[in-house]
Amino acid sequence: MEAPLPEPEPLKVLIDALRRLPGVGVRSARRMAYHMLQHDLAGADRLSRALADAVHNLGHCSRCNSFTEGDLCATCANPKRDESILCVVETPADQNMIESSHGYKGLYYVLMGHLAPLEGVGPAELQFDRLLKRAGDGVVQEVILATNFTAEGETTAHYLAELLRARGLSVSRLARGVPAGSELEYVDAGTIAWALMERRST
Amino acid sequence: MEAPLPEPEPLKVLIDALRRLPGVGVRSARRMAYHMLQHDLAGADRLSRALADAVHNLGHCSRCNSFTEGDLCATCANPKRDESILCVVETPADQNMIESSHGYKGLYYVLMGHLAPLEGVGPAELQFDRLLKRAGDGVVQEVILATNFTAEGETTAHYLAELLRARGLSVSRLARGVPAGSELEYVDAGTIAWALMERRST
Ligand SMILES: [Zn+2]
Ligand SMILES: [Zn+2]
Repeated sequence: MEAPLPEPEPLKVLIDALRRLPGVGVRSARRMAYHMLQHDLAGADRLSRALADAVHNLGHCSRCNSFTEGDLCATCANPKRDESILCVVETPADQNMIESSHGYKGLYYVLMGHLAPLEGVGPAELQFDRLLKRAGDGVVQEVILATNFTAEGETTAHYLAELLRARGLSVSRLARGVPAGSELEYVDAGTIAWALMERRST
Repeated sequence: MEAPLPEPEPLKVLIDALRRLPGVGVRSARRMAYHMLQHDLAGADRLSRALADAVHNLGHCSRCNSFTEGDLCATCANPKRDESILCVVETPADQNMIESSHGYKGLYYVLMGHLAPLEGVGPAELQFDRLLKRAGDGVVQEVILATNFTAEGETTAHYLAELLRARGLSVSRLARGVPAGSELEYVDAGTIAWALMERRST
């Protein structure tokens, strides 16, 4: 390679940084970079600031583990929520879906993932001890396991059910009204509301 | 909606900013945000800085219109390139592909797009007058049209061929060794090298 490569350094660095996004390969990253630099400089600037702001200002809620700006998220800080029920979900998106069903007034715990032994995600990585401590505060009476109805979500629910029942907690799982193999985020709110009502003890 | 939404403001802003990327919907944007905040804070920080750096330090080469840090890009500033031939491409990625074929020693002009009347992209938006001025500098003898072999790329090449020929320039198109309907970025370097050698006057 005697000739200098035509790509300037800041462009190369940007393409590399975009490639780290999930589901983005080198060609998509390049298209994203060209698009922003050619047609949406304001969008690039906005994304840059949004990332910096999120990195510096977002942390995990000390109670539910979801993303929050302060120590406690808005849901955990809401005195109107029923503190005796804890709903365990995989992601904040799943929590949003359950909220939008208007069928739940308890609190949440967000795992930020699911068990995936082949990818090195076990009980330690998901900090199950934190959830067990939260669920064992003496106020929580029932834990609803609302992990996805995928193989990983079911495994996670099964594993957690055993740990939680061993601590004397009542454990339930969303009713199987949710189509098997699907992810909560893609299920309509009505089905989720129904599955919440029909939840059964495991 | 009496209850506060569970998503904190910096997360909402980040998801909105990610949605402006081409090909990214709200669910992908949310997954990207969760992934970075949960598993790759360093990557988020890096992307933020790469965007700011690119926005502030990259501009368009005054000669070829590609992205560059200074006034002239490395290719245009290279005294070893043959200044009598100008190769017109749609994007810097296409330029990279032609460079990697090692079959071309002339200079480039990067359109940063193609004619797309239905999307409001015409000769004015692509600044054809800039290309015509560049090609008419008295040094350029031949213009190779290496736009994509898609409908838009062919239309762009046809349109440019007429304008350039009217100015007394020799105009050629990459040989049809490139499979019709395909985009240069996805063609192997050998095919491109062959198509360059077999190029014919239009
Ligand atoms: Zn919380
Ligand atoms: Zn240049």
